[in-house]
Amino acid sequence: MLPSGEITDVQIENGRFSKIGKCETTVIPESIEKIDCTNKALIPPFYNTHTHAGMTLLRGYADDMPLFEWLSEHIWPMEAKLNGEDIYLGTKLAIVEMLKSGTVFFNDMYWYVPHLVKAVEEFGIRAAIGCPVMDRNAEISLPMAAEFIAEYRNNPLIQITVAPHAVYTCSEKNLRACAELARKNDVFLHIHISETEQENADCIKATGLTPVQYLKKIGVLDCKVIAAHCIYANDEDVKTLAECGTVISHCPTSNRKLASGLFPMSIFRKYNCKVTLGTDGCSSNNNLDMREEAKIASLLAISQGGATAMPVKNMLQIATRAGAEAFGINAGEIAVGREADALIIDLRDERMVPLYNLASNWIYSAGHNCIESVLVKGEFVMKNRIVPHADEVIDEVRRRFNRANWC
Amino acid sequence: MLPSGEITDVQIENGRFSKIGKCETTVIPESIEKIDCTNKALIPPFYNTHTHAGMTLLRGYADDMPLFEWLSEHIWPMEAKLNGEDIYLGTKLAIVEMLKSGTVFFNDMYWYVPHLVKAVEEFGIRAAIGCPVMDRNAEISLPMAAEFIAEYRNNPLIQITVAPHAVYTCSEKNLRACAELARKNDVFLHIHISETEQENADCIKATGLTPVQYLKKIGVLDCKVIAAHCIYANDEDVKTLAECGTVISHCPTSNRKLASGLFPMSIFRKYNCKVTLGTDGCSSNNNLDMREEAKIASLLAISQGGATAMPVKNMLQIATRAGAEAFGINAGEIAVGREADALIIDLRDERMVPLYNLASNWIYSAGHNCIESVLVKGEFVMKNRIVPHADEVIDEVRRRFNRANWC
Repeated sequence: MLPSGEITDVQIENGRFSKIGKCETTVIPESIEKIDCTNKALIPPFYNTHTHAGMTLLRGYADDMPLFEWLSEHIWPMEAKLNGEDIYLGTKLAIVEMLKSGTVFFNDMYWYVPHLVKAVEEFGIRAAIGCPVMDRNAEISLPMAAEFIAEYRNNPLIQITVAPHAVYTCSEKNLRACAELARKNDVFLHIHISETEQENADCIKATGLTPVQYLKKIGVLDCKVIAAHCIYANDEDVKTLAECGTVISHCPTSNRKLASGLFPMSIFRKYNCKVTLGTDGCSSNNNLDMREEAKIASLLAISQGGATAMPVKNMLQIATRAGAEAFGINAGEIAVGREADALIIDLRDERMVPLYNLASNWIYSAGHNCIESVLVKGEFVMKNRIVPHADEVIDEVRRRFNRANWC
Repeated sequence: MLPSGEITDVQIENGRFSKIGKCETTVIPESIEKIDCTNKALIPPFYNTHTHAGMTLLRGYADDMPLFEWLSEHIWPMEAKLNGEDIYLGTKLAIVEMLKSGTVFFNDMYWYVPHLVKAVEEFGIRAAIGCPVMDRNAEISLPMAAEFIAEYRNNPLIQITVAPHAVYTCSEKNLRACAELARKNDVFLHIHISETEQENADCIKATGLTPVQYLKKIGVLDCKVIAAHCIYANDEDVKTLAECGTVISHCPTSNRKLASGLFPMSIFRKYNCKVTLGTDGCSSNNNLDMREEAKIASLLAISQGGATAMPVKNMLQIATRAGAEAFGINAGEIAVGREADALIIDLRDERMVPLYNLASNWIYSAGHNCIESVLVKGEFVMKNRIVPHADEVIDEVRRRFNRANWC
């Protein structure tokens, strides 16, 4: 079954959907793999547009506290103890979790880029990997970002981005340098914008402008920008973001869990801004489940705009195709010509019945365990719920990071 | 592992936890069943204090619209077509879903009580089954409720409740009759209170009082009352509910999905009111997953009261022991003397690692698929993810209710 409800055959060639419709021959050559999808649906997978995969190692490490205390007293000190091998392991754990919950792409921002690349390539997931820049490391991180962009330019699964952390951790000089690097290389610039009221207040005090207007003024928004959060963007800011073609990564769970604030979805929809969905790092979520994220995003949008404010098909589109297209990936829907990223889900799962509306059952009701298989460019990255090497990753994390052996 | 983090042995006898602590003998008689819980945790299960299990048949039938339109134009007309056998099937589907997601008790309000009882007994789950009363059927439903209370008085799994739907569907006369019946028989009265702004406005217009004060005045709150929603209860109302010992069933997803409003958790906590958690019917949720419900409830409480407003252990307690104790069930924690209701969960699930804080991983991160087994009074109702007869139930629902055969 397709998302439209149509029951038909789907053909994949060279990593793309090449034909959708009843197969006219009963004799299919042995060389072609046939997958029986009786009682199953083939649906688009998720594209997670903001996360810090390595932070999966910090799941549950510090909960129930506000953002600045959480960051400065717990997360940053703990992160300072992590090395490249740790981040490689944490990223692998994140990838296992993402594949098992139907995500085929993540837009990341974290240290140790080559380790992230290695993890991504091992599992065959897609990623945009941000080279983080903060004032404290810009002298090293900026030239490194330039190197990584060159090194991984033609990687089929990966795009490198320049990732200045935020206006409160990067000077104007460094922000301008990041923008120049991104523009020159035609890569994305990935940044947190207006995540807290404090960030806005401090920026206005220092520059006279909101973070959005400040970034516009200094040329950052002239790049291809992916901006996480934007919950304190005002009407004028959202209009600016829309005009600049900035892609927004809405991260509702993290915003709620850190009590940062509420994303003004209705304003973003009013200006037709490019809204996509992200989980943020799972230390402030505490998982990477885009289905759960989409449900929570829907409930919050409804609570602001009324029961009709976010039809489930729109939310599904935000969590799938919008994310893919924002990053120039020609995927995110089951359609001829699109790259064959897809989920095979079990329609006999107790939460998928009865079936009046597939999108509704999928977003509002299902659990990630009804995903049987995950395809990236027509290749299985999870088959019958098996992600190769997942158990080894989990055992290693348990051995090295469970509290008994750690604190 | 126990919720405390302690790794030890647990002994169950006659349906109760009889000993917790290292087993001192290595020779355990053959007659005693031993369960190896290496890499597993034994944690309290969920008690769902407000649902309409039969409505699982309406999952995804009508989404993204406000409560009154949803009820009057879609749900009520559809419900009118359902007979006792349908409700029996829908309730079985709900029970399968609840057991698979770790719920061992549900407080229900729906038609065809004997059919609900039959479904509950077949699966061995616990339930409080409400006999619904509305003006349109009170002449029949009130005497029926009296009969059901007598008939099922000594059922070990079930308690019958009197369930006047709401102040806007029951006259004062019928509400008083329900209260008298509940009081006389010492059973719960189950009612929706202050679910929408409209309900409050209409009640104030008709009686000069909020629904809570009106129900107090006419004696309803002198009963043991379980009140669903209460999102428009004001400070004075919450004080009254606390003084009356009324149990509240907070249903955050349904309240958000129908855009009804936001439960004022901080006021309820201020007056030390008995707050428990419910999923509501899965036509307005659209699942019965109490873990997901608890996460959403936490995020909403945090968004109102700040990042420290709802430590995860408090939310776990609301979703487990508070619900059990409210209904007089001596369970909901792993402690000697308590009835042995429990979940065995897999600590090698990718979402349960690393393990710094079990409650946090369980509520914020896990999926229901990491529940391996479910115990009610020491008996397995799900073992190694198998709920007996689940597949038959799912197939029958698909045959009879999937849209292709239905609309």
